[in-house]
Formats: sequence, C-alpha cells, structure tokens
Amino acid sequence: MKNKPLILVTNDDGIQATGLRKLIAIMRGLGEVVVIASEFPMSGMGHAVTIQTPLRPRLLHSEKEYQEFITNGTPVDNVKLGKHRLLDRTPDLVVSGINHGSNASINIIYSGTMGAVLEASIDNIPAIGFSLQDFSADADFSHTDNFILKITNKVLDEGLPKGVSLNVNFPKISGEPLKGIKVCRQAEARWVEEFDERTDPYGRKYYWLGGRFENGDGRSNTDEKALAENYVSVVPVQYDFTAHQYIEKLSF
Amino acid sequence: MKNKPLILVTNDDGIQATGLRKLIAIMRGLGEVVVIASEFPMSGMGHAVTIQTPLRPRLLHSEKEYQEFITNGTPVDNVKLGKHRLLDRTPDLVVSGINHGSNASINIIYSGTMGAVLEASIDNIPAIGFSLQDFSADADFSHTDNFILKITNKVLDEGLPKGVSLNVNFPKISGEPLKGIKVCRQAEARWVEEFDERTDPYGRKYYWLGGRFENGDGRSNTDEKALAENYVSVVPVQYDFTAHQYIEKLSF
Repeated sequence: MKNKPLILVTNDDGIQATGLRKLIAIMRGLGEVVVIASEFPMSGMGHAVTIQTPLRPRLLHSEKEYQEFITNGTPVDNVKLGKHRLLDRTPDLVVSGINHGSNASINIIYSGTMGAVLEASIDNIPAIGFSLQDFSADADFSHTDNFILKITNKVLDEGLPKGVSLNVNFPKISGEPLKGIKVCRQAEARWVEEFDERTDPYGRKYYWLGGRFENGDGRSNTDEKALAENYVSVVPVQYDFTAHQYIEKLSF
Repeated sequence: MKNKPLILVTNDDGIQATGLRKLIAIMRGLGEVVVIASEFPMSGMGHAVTIQTPLRPRLLHSEKEYQEFITNGTPVDNVKLGKHRLLDRTPDLVVSGINHGSNASINIIYSGTMGAVLEASIDNIPAIGFSLQDFSADADFSHTDNFILKITNKVLDEGLPKGVSLNVNFPKISGEPLKGIKVCRQAEARWVEEFDERTDPYGRKYYWLGGRFENGDGRSNTDEKALAENYVSVVPVQYDFTAHQYIEKLSF
C-alpha cells in the first residue's frame, strides 16, 4: 500500500482562522497533515521573510498523522521552517488558506497566503492557495469543499509542471450553486489607494492603508470575470518575473 | 523649458544606507527628488504592506527641489504614501536602491527594493531597482554611477512598456572595469535553506534564517551569468504572475 501523502497546511490569517480549520479538516481526509501557521495574522505580508528577529516555532498539538505548530514568522518562513526543520521528509503538497478575502488578480502580490504557495513552488513542491471572496471572520466556506477536494486530488495524483503553482479563488457564497472551475489568467486590476488620515491624541497625523479595488480588465479569460460569473477561478502562477517578450526589445 | 522630472527615491536598507545616499546624489542631478525611505531596514520584506499598524511619515528635510521623508512602513508602503499622500503630483520615475546585496535571480521575490519597483509599475509609473552584489554596509559603489545615469536617462526619455519595470544588478567592484550592460532573464536559482539553530538563556531553541545560494541554471542569457562575467544585468520584470503557457494545458 502506498504511503499517505504528507501535506503541509499554512495560511496568512493566523492559527485561529475559520478558513484554516476548514482546510485542515479537508486535508486530514487525504493524508498525513502538518500545520505550520503564524500565531498572529500575516495578511499583506506578500513574500516577506523574517531576518531581523529569530524564528520560534512551537508544537501545539500532536497525534497520529497530525501535528500543529505555531510560529512568530510569516507564511513564507513557515514553509521554509517546515521543509528544513520541522518535517521529517519533503512534503508531497503545500496548501495555503482558505484565505478570508480574495487573492485574485493583483491581490496575489500582497498575499501571504500566496507567498507560502510560491515559496513551496521555488522548492519544487506542488502547491495550491485557496481564497474566498469574503473578508469576514465568520465567512461561510461550505460551498468550497468539493472543489477543494477535486483540485487537490488531481494535484496529488498528477503533480504540477515545474515552477508552476495554483491560485484558486472562490466567489462568496450566494443562493446559486457554483457553476464549475475556470482555468484563467490574472486580471489586470489594481487598488486605487485612499489612505484614511487620522490625528492621534497628541496632534500627530497617521494613516491607515485602505483603498478601492478597480478592475479595468474587460478580457473574457480573467479570474475576476470567472468569479463574477460564479465560477471557481484557477490561475496557474509562476515565480519567474522576467518579462521575456521585452528582452530582445530593450537595449542600453 | 520642460519641467524637471519628479523622481521618487526609496530603498529597503533604510534611510542611513550608503547605497541610498549614492542614488540620491545621482538623481539630484537629473530632476526634482523626493526620498521616502523606511526608518529601519526592510530587507526581505518583499511586497509586504502594513495593515496591522498605521503609517507615520515624517518630513526630515526640505529644500529647493529636494525633500526627504522617513516612515515606519515597508518599501511598498513608501511608494503608496508617495503617490497618494506625500507628493503633489505623480512621479515621472521611481528608483529604488542601491541595494546592499544582490537582487538578481530568485532574490527579486524576497526583495523590498524590488517590491517598491513592482508597486510603482502596478501604478503605471516607470521604475528601476538598482542592487550591488555586496552586502557590506561600506560597499564601494563607485563603478555604478555611469551605468545608473545611462539607464535612468534612457527610461526618463523613453519610458518603459506598460506593466514592465527593470531589475538592475551590479557585480561587486573588482580590479577590472565593467564590460557593459546585458539585458537578460532571471536565472532559475534558489536558496538552499540552512537555519542556524541556537538555544536562548532559558533553554528554548530559536532559529535564524540563513542559507546558501545555489544556481543550477546553465543557460547563457541569465542575470547570474552576466554578473559572473562582470556585466551589469538588466532584467525586464512584470507583475503578472500568470503562467500563460499552462492555461490551455490544465483542466479540472
């Protein structure tokens, strides 16, 4: 009998998040699971690593085929700690999420959830990020189960191309069932920043990063379009940032 | 007479870094300069943004055609603050660096210096990151001046394609003059992590993120190859992470 796959689960909303608990429950049905999650929320940490302070992972819970660690690191740190310190072998799969909030379109670049996924991919480990278009702490994830199972089983069976990982996003739950899965491209959208300016009790100004999401991408094959039409979006993503088509065109 | 260009200068080594001072000096010869730099080092912060705490920019210095701000934010925050709060108009160019340490190859993904560059590019502002293959605080940048001038002047004159920015790296200074500029691709290299395990005075283990850079990419047109041959490497980079060639190949 084949050994059960080893699945590393992480996220960026921290160890308490409902979306993480949901993902853990699904993955425990598929293999041996090790959770390495940040003690505190790490939303917006992108691909940050911790180099100014040391990392302190702590084993919270251990039973047969299941372990749970918390750390003071970022999601990328958690993948590194897993691969190089906390796991006894290279995981067969890294999954991250389920994120409370969309990581479609440009959100991928700010996302700690997707940072963890890209980091696993750099290390040649198949990896999938799951995110829901609902920021609320008590978001309803019940429509995501079957799709997560389907996508994860396929990746466990077949792997992913070298250097490629998956950015999977779900629409917020509605009265209608999801229409299916669309493999698509990252929409060319962005945040139009509007800082929230306030004054502290000592008369000094401070700013909260806010903003409004603006999608000006009218193409038919984007993740934003798929989500708007109540599909699950799956974007194959890579960590090679080279704009290859411009290598020949630029000269200095 | 055409107005002087407005150039936003930032980095990830903090306001005191020699590389930043060097870049400021060069840019002041080309236009009106506003510096927005982090008070503390932000190496390894990638594309992180600050959402758990408010941002507090502070004007340090102001004179004709020159201003200097420090913030408690990341390099990406600094670009956002510049664009949306601190500058009176959209900058004509964002430059970041000169980083103490390479941002060639996979280093781009961890780099706060390049995070700032990608952020500007998302906002359709031409942007260039400059980095030196020398981590030391007193690194010698004297061989970089003419190349920085040449590349920056070209970008100021001609702009960059939409969605594309530049990752420029310099070899550490040697006895030999630099051979020129090579436009090339990001090498497929990575860090092989080796955490440094220590024990604190209370008997608890902690880990410093370390590691060894490993370049297994033998292709002739990579940034690592150009740098090893004493060229300046210029990689055109993009923030679209889609692995387009796999959209048609994947199905679920």
